[in-house]
Amino acid sequence: MGNAQSRTTLAPAEARTRQNGQRARSTEAVFAALLDEAGIAINGKRPWDMQIHHPQTAERILATGSLGLGESYMDGWWDCERVDELIAHLLRARLDERVGSATMLLQGLRAKLRNLQSLGRAWQVGQVHYDLGNDFFEAMLDPYMAYTCGYWNDANDLARAQEAKLDLICRKLGLNSGMRLLDIGCGWGSLMKFAAERYGVTCVGLTISREQAEYGRARCAGLPVTFHLADYREFNATGDQRFDRVASVGMFEHVGYKNHRHFFAVAHRCLSDDGLFLLHTIGKKYRRTPTDPWIDRYIFPNGDLPSLGQIADASENLFVIEDVHNFGADYDRTLMAWHANFEAAWPRFAERYGPRFYRMWRYYLLACAGSFRARTTQLWQIVLSPQGVAGGYRRPA
Amino acid sequence: MGNAQSRTTLAPAEARTRQNGQRARSTEAVFAALLDEAGIAINGKRPWDMQIHHPQTAERILATGSLGLGESYMDGWWDCERVDELIAHLLRARLDERVGSATMLLQGLRAKLRNLQSLGRAWQVGQVHYDLGNDFFEAMLDPYMAYTCGYWNDANDLARAQEAKLDLICRKLGLNSGMRLLDIGCGWGSLMKFAAERYGVTCVGLTISREQAEYGRARCAGLPVTFHLADYREFNATGDQRFDRVASVGMFEHVGYKNHRHFFAVAHRCLSDDGLFLLHTIGKKYRRTPTDPWIDRYIFPNGDLPSLGQIADASENLFVIEDVHNFGADYDRTLMAWHANFEAAWPRFAERYGPRFYRMWRYYLLACAGSFRARTTQLWQIVLSPQGVAGGYRRPA
Repeated sequence: MGNAQSRTTLAPAEARTRQNGQRARSTEAVFAALLDEAGIAINGKRPWDMQIHHPQTAERILATGSLGLGESYMDGWWDCERVDELIAHLLRARLDERVGSATMLLQGLRAKLRNLQSLGRAWQVGQVHYDLGNDFFEAMLDPYMAYTCGYWNDANDLARAQEAKLDLICRKLGLNSGMRLLDIGCGWGSLMKFAAERYGVTCVGLTISREQAEYGRARCAGLPVTFHLADYREFNATGDQRFDRVASVGMFEHVGYKNHRHFFAVAHRCLSDDGLFLLHTIGKKYRRTPTDPWIDRYIFPNGDLPSLGQIADASENLFVIEDVHNFGADYDRTLMAWHANFEAAWPRFAERYGPRFYRMWRYYLLACAGSFRARTTQLWQIVLSPQGVAGGYRRPA
Repeated sequence: MGNAQSRTTLAPAEARTRQNGQRARSTEAVFAALLDEAGIAINGKRPWDMQIHHPQTAERILATGSLGLGESYMDGWWDCERVDELIAHLLRARLDERVGSATMLLQGLRAKLRNLQSLGRAWQVGQVHYDLGNDFFEAMLDPYMAYTCGYWNDANDLARAQEAKLDLICRKLGLNSGMRLLDIGCGWGSLMKFAAERYGVTCVGLTISREQAEYGRARCAGLPVTFHLADYREFNATGDQRFDRVASVGMFEHVGYKNHRHFFAVAHRCLSDDGLFLLHTIGKKYRRTPTDPWIDRYIFPNGDLPSLGQIADASENLFVIEDVHNFGADYDRTLMAWHANFEAAWPRFAERYGPRFYRMWRYYLLACAGSFRARTTQLWQIVLSPQGVAGGYRRPA
């Protein structure tokens, strides 16, 4: 699903203002007061209240912010019936903005000093995340195995929301039989399978996960679909190949701001002059927000959500932005559906992954759902054309 | 209509490469070769070919770029049956990008060193442009006197395209009876009149043209519509007034990049927390493009088209961008309709404005039409919300 960022940073700065003499008491008081502003009570009875089991929970979270919030949950120091609602409350109260976080600052510095998505490092997320096990993702996702936001406009279940999303992409791209589509970051091939089956399109997909490529090939057997195990920067370097359409769905979150321009240049060199490029990506509200350190450590190493300003700047002079569609609220429903599937399937996986993984994965899905529910995190489908569509582009209904 | 930018810069740099000995001959040869790349012939027979009357035309245009192209047309040094197609050809060949222009550089420097849209200077465009004469604009525009891009999706004439645009704005804003709407840069009140009549909305509009305010008041007599002669920065400075909705249609082009953030802060302080803000503006493809010097001198003093990156940056942390709709190609049809009305009405105005104004105005409308036809210039309707619409925003069909 790319790098969904929960941004639930709490309060290391507050910790410094404490008087030394009343250390323990004031730590808990500061923490409780912050939660209270977000309408959350410690050991309260509402589903989003925090049930605290470990006496050092407040201190740990105040000292290490968002990272500590997630890690202390993984360690079983606290519980919450509705982690999604807890996170949505925290974000709506903008606690993540009001209090600084040393871990967030370090994260930003690290991204500035290094290219976290260099050719060497870019494969890490494939190994850590996408190679977890195909059967695990199969149990959580829809039949097409689309690991990106569904489109719930007219859908009531995950399978339909994902088909609606895939169809929306095909219609926005104006796919027709015989066209050639390049999918940058194709996952298990959900879009390519759908586009080949329903629109008669020939597809080439790029992925950096060996497991995804092998499993995707099996799933697309008999269709005009090719998987390449390749970094986007190394594909079609000479620019000899031109596709009628290019799509990238839930992969741009891994590109990193230092490589945005390179990414758009690759999409441009792979696209015919009268082609269309659809970019589907999670986005953040502020250009300067660094990656959430908990998500970075446990879920998506080296991820970096773009802002709309970054996308506009990186694509200018290469593309005309024809349309921007924000349906971030639909990711809330998608993540809640994945969470329900995950919980239902967990007994089959408990032994393989263990209880700490269970709490980690649950926290990941629910915290991200809360972040989209609070509208802190965005989901954009952006249609771009190399020269501007003559007569204008119209988004299909 | 805001500051439509034709960006038809030609070639001062080329001029410097000439050999001294063959001055006149090579100037014309360079000019002809450039035009040839764009598929334009000198004294050719196609409607977009240039008919050159004055022997120094090539030299003047190569020396002063876009400014000289427009000025030499105003002076009658050259003619063209379809100025719109001529400009579209020049821009599609990207001649404006390939050759530098000293006038463009000076323009950019001037914008960097001064705030061209300061409180003192901002009124200039009102006096120079919008105070030209209400009867003149009445003859050129539709019955609602909307001096911005129409929406031609289902329309075949200007009046319907403008009503469709006004209705699209009202539907995107979800206007309902009893709501209060603030219109920043309200012109002659087309949106306020439409919204009050069709949606039962109470409206307050800001304009910096005395003629617009007086005429607008007369046109909206009997409706719950108020005109304020005020700069947006001076309105509701204490933030006491909150509106259900804010719109700004074709005014942001005059704000200037140094004031973008201030503009969004004003919209934010005037809007209720669960409100919506619709921004309708012309846009440019590249952040660094300075204002076209011909447009700046003759049509819209101190204008400055925004890029999408500038808008995203200036609005972040104040608004969530819910939707971006690009229908720049519709401005081509709008400008051609204005041009047809202008030509038809000219006999009534010929004595008042004179023949040089005729050529200037014709060039303005047709060059801008060509710029939108070539997709060099964009038109965006952007919907923003202060906190993100709960459950997501959906663009109406």
